[in-house]
Amino acid sequence: MTPIKRISIIGAGNVATSLSKAIVNKGFTLIEVFSQKKENIAQLCKHLPKNCLPKMTTDIKQLDQTADCYIVCVKDDALATVIEALPLKNKLVVHTSGSIGMDVFNGFARYGVFYPLQTFSKENPISLKEVPICIEANQPKTEKLLMELGHHLSEKVVQLNSQQRETLHLAAVFACNFSNYLYSVAEEITTAQHIDFSLLHPLILETAKKIQLQPPKAAQTGPAKRHDKKTINKQLQLLKNSPHAEVYQLITQLIEQQG
Amino acid sequence: MTPIKRISIIGAGNVATSLSKAIVNKGFTLIEVFSQKKENIAQLCKHLPKNCLPKMTTDIKQLDQTADCYIVCVKDDALATVIEALPLKNKLVVHTSGSIGMDVFNGFARYGVFYPLQTFSKENPISLKEVPICIEANQPKTEKLLMELGHHLSEKVVQLNSQQRETLHLAAVFACNFSNYLYSVAEEITTAQHIDFSLLHPLILETAKKIQLQPPKAAQTGPAKRHDKKTINKQLQLLKNSPHAEVYQLITQLIEQQG
Repeated sequence: MTPIKRISIIGAGNVATSLSKAIVNKGFTLIEVFSQKKENIAQLCKHLPKNCLPKMTTDIKQLDQTADCYIVCVKDDALATVIEALPLKNKLVVHTSGSIGMDVFNGFARYGVFYPLQTFSKENPISLKEVPICIEANQPKTEKLLMELGHHLSEKVVQLNSQQRETLHLAAVFACNFSNYLYSVAEEITTAQHIDFSLLHPLILETAKKIQLQPPKAAQTGPAKRHDKKTINKQLQLLKNSPHAEVYQLITQLIEQQG
Repeated sequence: MTPIKRISIIGAGNVATSLSKAIVNKGFTLIEVFSQKKENIAQLCKHLPKNCLPKMTTDIKQLDQTADCYIVCVKDDALATVIEALPLKNKLVVHTSGSIGMDVFNGFARYGVFYPLQTFSKENPISLKEVPICIEANQPKTEKLLMELGHHLSEKVVQLNSQQRETLHLAAVFACNFSNYLYSVAEEITTAQHIDFSLLHPLILETAKKIQLQPPKAAQTGPAKRHDKKTINKQLQLLKNSPHAEVYQLITQLIEQQG
């Protein structure tokens, strides 16, 4: 069983960019990046050292056949279509999606999932070192190869089956997407009163740091937690006729029920 | 107008502890800490250098009359009662509450608000340096004194009136208390499936960091943002009969409406 050395990346978005950077930095060979749009590949390559630039492929039928592993990093809703078009039935292929099962690869010989659990932005490709990578594969040998690759890129690599990964992705929607929505509510509330939203930056960061040291339930503070009806009613008054009243009421009630 | 040099702290909780530490570290004299419970003062003093320990006062009638400023850091629901009992009608007194107006000091000569916008924990009193301090006072002279004190303790000091502070506090409930609640939902969802919640730590931290660089609306990601009905329906299916379905549905709908 030869370890993975030569890698192809299918896709040129945020995940593809962070992965490509990590792959090159850790001494693997990034032989090729595929995207239908050449300008997206060019954008990705800006984050790579000049002496490690991959082949740029825009026709999926022309994919290099010599890679040890093909990592498909495309949007969830494009994943099935892209996979179907891959001329790689006998190659090791993985996807990077949290919410899509491994069985999307049915018909392939060796496949799996290589899911980096993080929110990526193209402008600022973060280091994978502290990003948990969740691995699944259709055979123990393949799983071992992917675990090895994972350990080279990240300090935290775990094996999760498709159902566990779905659960984790659901939890991430609450912890990340929904929290971010609440930040946007806070921004709307402050800027409507000409208050600088950035005053809340340190508080937001500390709230996220706190639960790295203690369970979120133990870290809970605020009017709902202390059943402070007076403040809650005053705040509901401030939110009269606001589109944010409903979510305030619901989460307040849920925190109160937590005891 | 003599600057504030000698300070008394009324209260011995998390805010009192962080403030006491900053006051002492910045060369001010912490002459006294009041709490009805001596053990709470003793706990606070553990965070202070041995040569800077304050007088410990448990009878509010015995408060030292020689401080330049008295900072009342007690729980919101105890604030009115404590202030009424203060034998300090001619002294400069402030409170540290985000949600309580300055008029709670009616009857005093010089008063104001000194509100550090942060979530404090006793175990780990954080530095005030990066904590925004929001100032309000009943006269310009007093405001100037409090702004000066603020600038010694923090890099970010702003003047906010009571109404603005209420708005900011409401926004903080969304950004901090409610986000933390969502972290606790994520913890429940993962641990119920024997998945290590700490896998989400880096994601939570990065989500909080992202909005320090771009507006939350621009940072929004996830199934609701991309109107990915397939994933949303799958996740609602996972949440069938779960107490978390309602908040999932509501916030998903609100993000979709954001466009």
